[in-house]
Amino acid sequence: MIVGVDIGGANLKFADESQRARSRFFPIWRQPELLKDALRESLAAFPEVTALAIVMTGELADCFVDRAEGVDHITAHVHQAAAQLGIKSCYFYGVDGAFRQRVGVEDVDLLAAANWHALASFVGRTITADALLIDVGSTTTDIVPIRDRVVATKAMTDYDRLGEGSLAYIGCQRTPVCALCSSLRFQDRSVPVMNEVFATIDDARIVLGFELESPTDFQTADGKPRTKEFAANRLARMLGLDRRRVSLQQATHIADQVIHAARERIADSIQRLLATQSFRPQAYVISGHGNDLLRLPDDQEVISLAERLGPDVSRCAPSYAVAMQLSHGFDQRPTAPFHA
Amino acid sequence: MIVGVDIGGANLKFADESQRARSRFFPIWRQPELLKDALRESLAAFPEVTALAIVMTGELADCFVDRAEGVDHITAHVHQAAAQLGIKSCYFYGVDGAFRQRVGVEDVDLLAAANWHALASFVGRTITADALLIDVGSTTTDIVPIRDRVVATKAMTDYDRLGEGSLAYIGCQRTPVCALCSSLRFQDRSVPVMNEVFATIDDARIVLGFELESPTDFQTADGKPRTKEFAANRLARMLGLDRRRVSLQQATHIADQVIHAARERIADSIQRLLATQSFRPQAYVISGHGNDLLRLPDDQEVISLAERLGPDVSRCAPSYAVAMQLSHGFDQRPTAPFHA
Repeated sequence: MIVGVDIGGANLKFADESQRARSRFFPIWRQPELLKDALRESLAAFPEVTALAIVMTGELADCFVDRAEGVDHITAHVHQAAAQLGIKSCYFYGVDGAFRQRVGVEDVDLLAAANWHALASFVGRTITADALLIDVGSTTTDIVPIRDRVVATKAMTDYDRLGEGSLAYIGCQRTPVCALCSSLRFQDRSVPVMNEVFATIDDARIVLGFELESPTDFQTADGKPRTKEFAANRLARMLGLDRRRVSLQQATHIADQVIHAARERIADSIQRLLATQSFRPQAYVISGHGNDLLRLPDDQEVISLAERLGPDVSRCAPSYAVAMQLSHGFDQRPTAPFHA
Repeated sequence: MIVGVDIGGANLKFADESQRARSRFFPIWRQPELLKDALRESLAAFPEVTALAIVMTGELADCFVDRAEGVDHITAHVHQAAAQLGIKSCYFYGVDGAFRQRVGVEDVDLLAAANWHALASFVGRTITADALLIDVGSTTTDIVPIRDRVVATKAMTDYDRLGEGSLAYIGCQRTPVCALCSSLRFQDRSVPVMNEVFATIDDARIVLGFELESPTDFQTADGKPRTKEFAANRLARMLGLDRRRVSLQQATHIADQVIHAARERIADSIQRLLATQSFRPQAYVISGHGNDLLRLPDDQEVISLAERLGPDVSRCAPSYAVAMQLSHGFDQRPTAPFHA
């Protein structure tokens, strides 16, 4: 059984060919040396693992001085975790659509930030031939044109993708409010925000009910619970206020402005991409868990990956995709390296 | 001897009446329970301390659920540190210009964020009767009108001050690049930034030579040294790039845009304040250590606190100011509470 592994900056996600899926919060920049242990623990829950298919974006984390160091660290930890579990084969996916078992310094910019490509290639191969794939993650939104069943952009690096609009660095959890709004209206007055990471878009989504409260989850800007009450307090803090002064009702008005700003920025990205590509998608394929941040045309077909794959697999979509791409590659041409 | 203590969010600053000054990096949100130890260690270096004069802004830190909790924590730790050192009197300064020895819940919004008021009151009393005081700190810039020797604004809370422009939440060290610039030009192309705290304005100032390199200082976004080389790498990361792709020369172009954005925002704040106050200052009094972020009119008198007080005291200006205000208050009316 192949297990797909998506090593992001803030989360590790796993899915096998049988649609078993797991994810864990792992902010790699805090303790990068624990990556192999986290991988080993999570992988131990999967039965009969014969090979790993790996995509990464975590090499971007600023504990690594550059992406070469990041890719090197991540591949080394994958190999160590696999060896400890007796898994013999590790295949790393690159934005050229190929898998590699050995990774050299010349492969760094192919392996870096390749999860979007694995997902889009899988969607093109198995779900729809022509579409715009939009995957809203915790930190970023990938916007990938698919034509004739393949990824239809030449922008492969994060830098090129930011420039063309196919990567919007706005997600549904981690984006700081101060990066979205330089000022906020409160009580009929526009007030510049405090430029601190006192609150994130997650707080706006909790306050507005787009995200369920989770009182035992402390992955927030201030380390206090993911509840409406504390989220409202975090939003109030952006204006130098706090819960003594801002009601939950008032906080929803602040939250509306944050969500509006995020929607605008993502919509701008989509427009910029479509304009440069002179591309009108036949359908939209929606992945991830922040669809409230999208404004889609009413007259277009919208395919939900969550409905197609189920919510658990959808949350780990790139890891499932890379597992299935490797599996397909084995079927097609059982030697490595190969194109899936 | 009175020692003035300025308890900020990221730094503790101390100065006595004889212009002995010290400061230490103390990000209160990381380990608020160590505040009393940090205070005690630093205060132990001052001779013959008879009283403390305290101003604070650290109650804003998001380890405290609201400012009431923050003020309570800070006053308690000050009292504990003072008791351990045998210092009998602690006077807390409020934005009403008064000192308090006992602090109740009704005093919270007076004591919160009062350092700007102490400094401006001191400047008005001792240096110039009519001026605009501009104090660029690590995190914020205070812009305080002084008329007839007293603070000439009714905006006393951070919220009201943000709104009127007398508080610009932009400083010379901690401000995240992603809060200043939503996109950056690089190689003749405008590219949206990664909305992460990968770099701060400190990196732009280091790259441009406004701040000296300090290879043994790791108080940076990625915990790597405060050198031009690493600062350039941090700036590159804002665009998904790194040192493999961005030269130091190219990084200076990125840095220029960051500094330009900060100058614009601070200038906007000053303009907004002067417009609402219909106030044309006779002089500018400049404090802090980020004067490169200011654009001042050529035809106005500019008084440098660093020249008047010396660089060491100037860096701890609010703590020196609050010590001198308490000393002056004792001379005027030796019972507490009193107005200085």
